[in-house]
Amino acid sequence: MGYSPPGVMGSHPRVLVVGAGFGGLNVTRGLARAAVRVTLVDRTNHHLFQPLLYQVATATLSPAQIATPVRSVLRRQKNAEVLLAEITGIDRAAREAVAGDRRLGFDYLVLATGAQHFYFGHEGWAEHAPGLKTIPDATQIRQKILSAFERAEMETDPARREALLHFVLVGGGPTGVEMAGAISELAHRALSRDFRRINPRSARITVVEAGPRCLGTFPETLSRRAERDLAELGVSVMTGAKVDRIDPSGVWIGERCLRAETVIWTAGVAASGAARWLGAETDRAGRARVGPDLSLPGDPRIFVIGDTATVSGIDGRPLPGTAPVAMQQGRYVAGVISRELEGAAARVPFRYRDKGNLATIGRRRAVADLGRVRLAGPLAWYAWVFVHIFYLIGFHNRILVMIEWAWAYLTFHRGARLILPRRE
Amino acid sequence: MGYSPPGVMGSHPRVLVVGAGFGGLNVTRGLARAAVRVTLVDRTNHHLFQPLLYQVATATLSPAQIATPVRSVLRRQKNAEVLLAEITGIDRAAREAVAGDRRLGFDYLVLATGAQHFYFGHEGWAEHAPGLKTIPDATQIRQKILSAFERAEMETDPARREALLHFVLVGGGPTGVEMAGAISELAHRALSRDFRRINPRSARITVVEAGPRCLGTFPETLSRRAERDLAELGVSVMTGAKVDRIDPSGVWIGERCLRAETVIWTAGVAASGAARWLGAETDRAGRARVGPDLSLPGDPRIFVIGDTATVSGIDGRPLPGTAPVAMQQGRYVAGVISRELEGAAARVPFRYRDKGNLATIGRRRAVADLGRVRLAGPLAWYAWVFVHIFYLIGFHNRILVMIEWAWAYLTFHRGARLILPRRE
Repeated sequence: MGYSPPGVMGSHPRVLVVGAGFGGLNVTRGLARAAVRVTLVDRTNHHLFQPLLYQVATATLSPAQIATPVRSVLRRQKNAEVLLAEITGIDRAAREAVAGDRRLGFDYLVLATGAQHFYFGHEGWAEHAPGLKTIPDATQIRQKILSAFERAEMETDPARREALLHFVLVGGGPTGVEMAGAISELAHRALSRDFRRINPRSARITVVEAGPRCLGTFPETLSRRAERDLAELGVSVMTGAKVDRIDPSGVWIGERCLRAETVIWTAGVAASGAARWLGAETDRAGRARVGPDLSLPGDPRIFVIGDTATVSGIDGRPLPGTAPVAMQQGRYVAGVISRELEGAAARVPFRYRDKGNLATIGRRRAVADLGRVRLAGPLAWYAWVFVHIFYLIGFHNRILVMIEWAWAYLTFHRGARLILPRRE
Repeated sequence: MGYSPPGVMGSHPRVLVVGAGFGGLNVTRGLARAAVRVTLVDRTNHHLFQPLLYQVATATLSPAQIATPVRSVLRRQKNAEVLLAEITGIDRAAREAVAGDRRLGFDYLVLATGAQHFYFGHEGWAEHAPGLKTIPDATQIRQKILSAFERAEMETDPARREALLHFVLVGGGPTGVEMAGAISELAHRALSRDFRRINPRSARITVVEAGPRCLGTFPETLSRRAERDLAELGVSVMTGAKVDRIDPSGVWIGERCLRAETVIWTAGVAASGAARWLGAETDRAGRARVGPDLSLPGDPRIFVIGDTATVSGIDGRPLPGTAPVAMQQGRYVAGVISRELEGAAARVPFRYRDKGNLATIGRRRAVADLGRVRLAGPLAWYAWVFVHIFYLIGFHNRILVMIEWAWAYLTFHRGARLILPRRE
């Protein structure tokens, strides 16, 4: 069944953007003044601010506080429309995207469908070590963490109680480190006086990292600082530790087992299926290889951006899968399409402007790599707070997140400690 | 397996309270200074402020904003402990409650497990017309309402589009009326400019009430006022309309079908299974018949309160299933137990002090029945706002709910418009 954007500007080229993350939203907004009809498709109705998702998983924020309805964001952009649908394939010959029994035609296509967890071929681990990419992931992990304390309170077997109070993060990148800090503060502060039989302060938190240090994309001095900060929060960091197996008893590293009921996967991600839809060449993580203009080799009107694509920076190394990369790529593609429709002949290659890297480890602790300037401690933490409030979309969410943070900062409590009943 | 409260006060009588709603929480807090060991059991970890649950279902509030962790509330009450568990039966002879393979002994038992939806024998209707009692109920209804607009935007068949934009509330009590007002404001204000193909203002909202008027527990003048307010918001109220069937096409009243994709059950509730566990005598809605001291006839150390029990007021009519009744009953039972342990011989019967009834119909519209004083309009609305903020537990939630209301009031937008992806 055919489906095409509204007829007002019936003769303008159709740009189909798949994914309302940082990449897709920036393409769409960048096309606001272009003579195009934009359709932005996502399977949820909101833009999710993923850098704060771990705070939903650790009971500080509510899901709606880091999610903004895409329709609200684009309310005033008359050349754009939003569709809630799940794209399942691309028919390149027909220039159509497939969404169930619907087909969405396009002149330009931008795929910005993000990434998903990747267990390096051990997909069975997912059951024991969930990853963190969506709101349901986050609320499931929140429930798992909070329930572990509840079950420990009921548990009479000391060994099982210890396993219930052991939290293992597999992967020492920013998500693993930020989550370890947040779980530590939850156990040592927020919950510390709430139980009668267990002492939540006795909870152990372990970060398992295969590489030689955590925060591997940061300069080594900042990694060391982060490891010291984590140690002060009572978090153990195991580096050079290759996970061999994850099962109900915990995480196996060789013959050694870290017995833990709660294991969270913060290691590998792989691109979503978009490259497969295109039959495009990919790297090992399933990211489509794109040209310097982020378009598919041989198909200049199909772009792949964000975590779904792989492209090299000026140093020849692939760009990281971060929000700034996706945002800059989104704006870049919008510019390419706009200029082309205005008659420009050649495309200037995409160039990533690295403004730096931030990770927070807990209350007033963070590391910031701003190129020549490297910060750690409270100043880096304030920078982290400022940047995250600044990039959060919507006045409403900014106010609420600031209040939740102020609340957590002043009282040490958490605003979103929910364990829900199972549905019958 | 035996399980008993901490040994600090090992010789004090054990009071087991089942349910952390208004009733159970007030019993527990009322026993703070009594020489007892209290165990409060609930299958969730939070006290839910049910009167605002409909605002979660209509995308104004987030779940955590009306839920407070029970452990936080009772953190400083040293004679109380909290257990997250689901009670499945009571062994009256052994004086134990059954929770899976655990047994919780008691000297006094207070059952305050609330109510659930009741479809008057038509349990099959539940699938098409979900009710609103828990947070998962509310988020499911929110998803249903928001998805209806999204699906209408994609729909090309005019009849199906009309059914997608028709919202039917079965039951014209406070929940039905409050929800109808909220859905109307969602459609006519919050979403009005967000779509390109449909006009959300064309949405229809119908309240179906079997009795002669909506808000049947209010004085007739206030019912009429509420019906007028609803009409001004574009809500149709059908009174004297008995529902014969609810199926995928909509709500059938005799041969007439109200075609609607979204039907919400705001009519009958029945007590939870607690009366059955006791083998107690019940009324038609499954509520245990209790004596004037709210204890079970013949078993003075077992109390049943709130929506789980039925007891008559001074006028001989059964007390309504509202928060004030449950709260007063909770405090009363705590007093009875405390005084008995201090040596009091006789129990003074429970007496409900009716402070009035409030229902809001939308922005600056409400009705208030305060006995001799009856209010409608902005003044009643301010009273409603004040009372709901006042009784909400926790400074954190009060601040956040006030901000969400101010936001919704000033911008007409909604703070919690989330449609989540289905879990794979």
